Amino acid sequence: MSLSLWTYCAVATMQPGAAHAYGLIDDAALVVDGSMLRWVGPRRDLPADLLNRCTHQHDAAGALITPGLIDCHTHLVYGGDRSHEFELRLNGASYEEIAQSGGGIVSTVLATRTASPEALTAQAQRRLQQLLAEGVTTLEIKSGYGLDLAQERKCLQVARTLGQSNAVAIRTTFLGAHAVPPEFAGRTDDYLDEVLRMLPVLHAEGLVDAVDAFCERIAFSPAQIARLFDAARALGLPMKLHAEQLSDSGGAQLAARFGATSCDHLEWLSDAGAAAMAAVHSVAVLLPGAFYFLRETKLPPVDLLRCHQVPIAIATDSNPGSSPCTSLLLMLNMACTLFRLTPEEALAGVTRHAAQALGLTDRGVLAPGLRADFVLWDVQRPAQLSYALGANPCRQTIFNGTPR
Amino acid sequence: MSLSLWTYCAVATMQPGAAHAYGLIDDAALVVDGSMLRWVGPRRDLPADLLNRCTHQHDAAGALITPGLIDCHTHLVYGGDRSHEFELRLNGASYEEIAQSGGGIVSTVLATRTASPEALTAQAQRRLQQLLAEGVTTLEIKSGYGLDLAQERKCLQVARTLGQSNAVAIRTTFLGAHAVPPEFAGRTDDYLDEVLRMLPVLHAEGLVDAVDAFCERIAFSPAQIARLFDAARALGLPMKLHAEQLSDSGGAQLAARFGATSCDHLEWLSDAGAAAMAAVHSVAVLLPGAFYFLRETKLPPVDLLRCHQVPIAIATDSNPGSSPCTSLLLMLNMACTLFRLTPEEALAGVTRHAAQALGLTDRGVLAPGLRADFVLWDVQRPAQLSYALGANPCRQTIFNGTPR
Repeated sequence: MSLSLWTYCAVATMQPGAAHAYGLIDDAALVVDGSMLRWVGPRRDLPADLLNRCTHQHDAAGALITPGLIDCHTHLVYGGDRSHEFELRLNGASYEEIAQSGGGIVSTVLATRTASPEALTAQAQRRLQQLLAEGVTTLEIKSGYGLDLAQERKCLQVARTLGQSNAVAIRTTFLGAHAVPPEFAGRTDDYLDEVLRMLPVLHAEGLVDAVDAFCERIAFSPAQIARLFDAARALGLPMKLHAEQLSDSGGAQLAARFGATSCDHLEWLSDAGAAAMAAVHSVAVLLPGAFYFLRETKLPPVDLLRCHQVPIAIATDSNPGSSPCTSLLLMLNMACTLFRLTPEEALAGVTRHAAQALGLTDRGVLAPGLRADFVLWDVQRPAQLSYALGANPCRQTIFNGTPR
Repeated sequence: MSLSLWTYCAVATMQPGAAHAYGLIDDAALVVDGSMLRWVGPRRDLPADLLNRCTHQHDAAGALITPGLIDCHTHLVYGGDRSHEFELRLNGASYEEIAQSGGGIVSTVLATRTASPEALTAQAQRRLQQLLAEGVTTLEIKSGYGLDLAQERKCLQVARTLGQSNAVAIRTTFLGAHAVPPEFAGRTDDYLDEVLRMLPVLHAEGLVDAVDAFCERIAFSPAQIARLFDAARALGLPMKLHAEQLSDSGGAQLAARFGATSCDHLEWLSDAGAAAMAAVHSVAVLLPGAFYFLRETKLPPVDLLRCHQVPIAIATDSNPGSSPCTSLLLMLNMACTLFRLTPEEALAGVTRHAAQALGLTDRGVLAPGLRADFVLWDVQRPAQLSYALGANPCRQTIFNGTPR
């Protein structure tokens, strides 16, 4: 059995409760056994018998090593973009003019529906490439721009294809309850019936790893989402919820009732909502890109989350309407600069807590027995990852034990 | 004489007063003659005799071509970084605690002074590389972290070295009047005397292309800066000014009196200041990275600048304390998202108006007789350059007529 050894590095294990911030080990050693971590710790503590069995030795040349980054909330697969709408708005066009020129989420739905799987794949591949270049080893991709069975299937299949053709783990989330498509305008309950018909079919086809919905006055009510979550629970699927982004509609409490792995956005989260999330260990996924791009002023209640010990994750929310973003490192900076997270909280938000938001217990931390997904960074200290704007100090990414 | 032809592209010439936004030409042709543009226009209008003399033909395969980007305000050469201070602040450290732990501009001055020229060059080279990867062909680098003759010389020499070892045009700016160094604490006028001694020496050594100063209550007064600008004028050097960033101290009027090519920051610019700038065609250099990173709330008066027809440029302000940024594309997005510039204004801000801010008339626009500095982008329309966050669609950069 062949082991490989990494030395001349510092390792931010991101283990909770470690003696040092970030679980930082200076002058560390890391032993990889196939696709798994076998040992990580101070180099001087490396057992001699383990050292003797290492057939490959890698000199990390002073790199900082962190767990592979996890982007736990993206809408990466879509057709078209919304740069035209962005430009119209900045040139002073009214909401009506933008709607008339085909703006809004409907325009993305139409562009997604008319795009071939190959075209969608090619477009998403470019965005994926940007995320991979920054050390992302796991990411979630939601459907939700197809909004009928065939189109949602197409998008989820594209997401699966991306996972097969790239050295990255992709988790798919069925977000049929993202918006009401034009053909169901004014008939939200009828559309929800349709979503309830899609879910078991797509699940049976192996396309669904989790279920998500958009809980908001302009989208679906808690009562409607409860119907969807009942169905998800019956299928044994993890649940997530877009909750309290634009108003407090009690989505977090509903999600907690179903033991949702995460609630996402949360600018308007109440104390009761935070308490409900804490009780079921639901993760708060904060999305600074959307906050920034939509010029929101209501900050997510970070102190409340800290007070209730709700784990905080950070993601790109990559999507054409509210966060046309493919840089998770930029999200680290925005989480610190805009939301006042500490650099350590921000890094936990794209590693340990992001894994938790996806219900994954085998990654997000560097520890024996977990996946060997890690990144070598050309930085001296972890805070530099969130401090810099526009730098990409990622030197090398190891995915599943193998250099990418 | 060998000409080369670029076709199968759209060209955003950025010429002012053009029939289409961005001076956009669909299905364009571009003829390069050595390091100069010979012809640019619709492909069907390309004169046959010119076409016949093109010995090299380049298929741009649907790219959008823009002028090479110009970053007209950077402090790229410095020692250390301030990620530690960033982290301390986010962990709740007080101003005093940060000062005691060696934070603030003084820490950068000390780190810069103790760094060897080689170390400074290596550190700045990494940042430069990130700017070059996004199509930057000209950038300005200020001194201002040395603050004595030998140290300012070292920094300006490093800037010159970067220009010699990279395919990029670098303009150096002497910013001795950036801050008062520790050894002159409380003796601002004495330090200014020192700055006035440095300027002619460094100029005689060919290290100074322009002179800048920081006009602010916490830095230098308009009266002090007038002494420096008198000296700059006597040497025939263009002037620039960090003005009205934190308060309105009348810096813009002072700068206009000396015909400064630009005033930079300008959040607190008054109507009188804008009028004074307009009268001398001074460029307003807006720095959204610093606005964002410092969490400023006072927006620069964009409508006032438009009203007075003051040209607006955009730059990274790359520096360790208030804008640790090496992405000019991110600044385009922030200029639109935070300052509500249109995508066309933002692009003019890193091309035509950025050239004007540096007093350069041979670049920033694609037109016959100007420099052949241009970028091929994998985008369908110019607005995508400012819309996307974290993408880098730069396919190829041509610097001085030569692919980089």
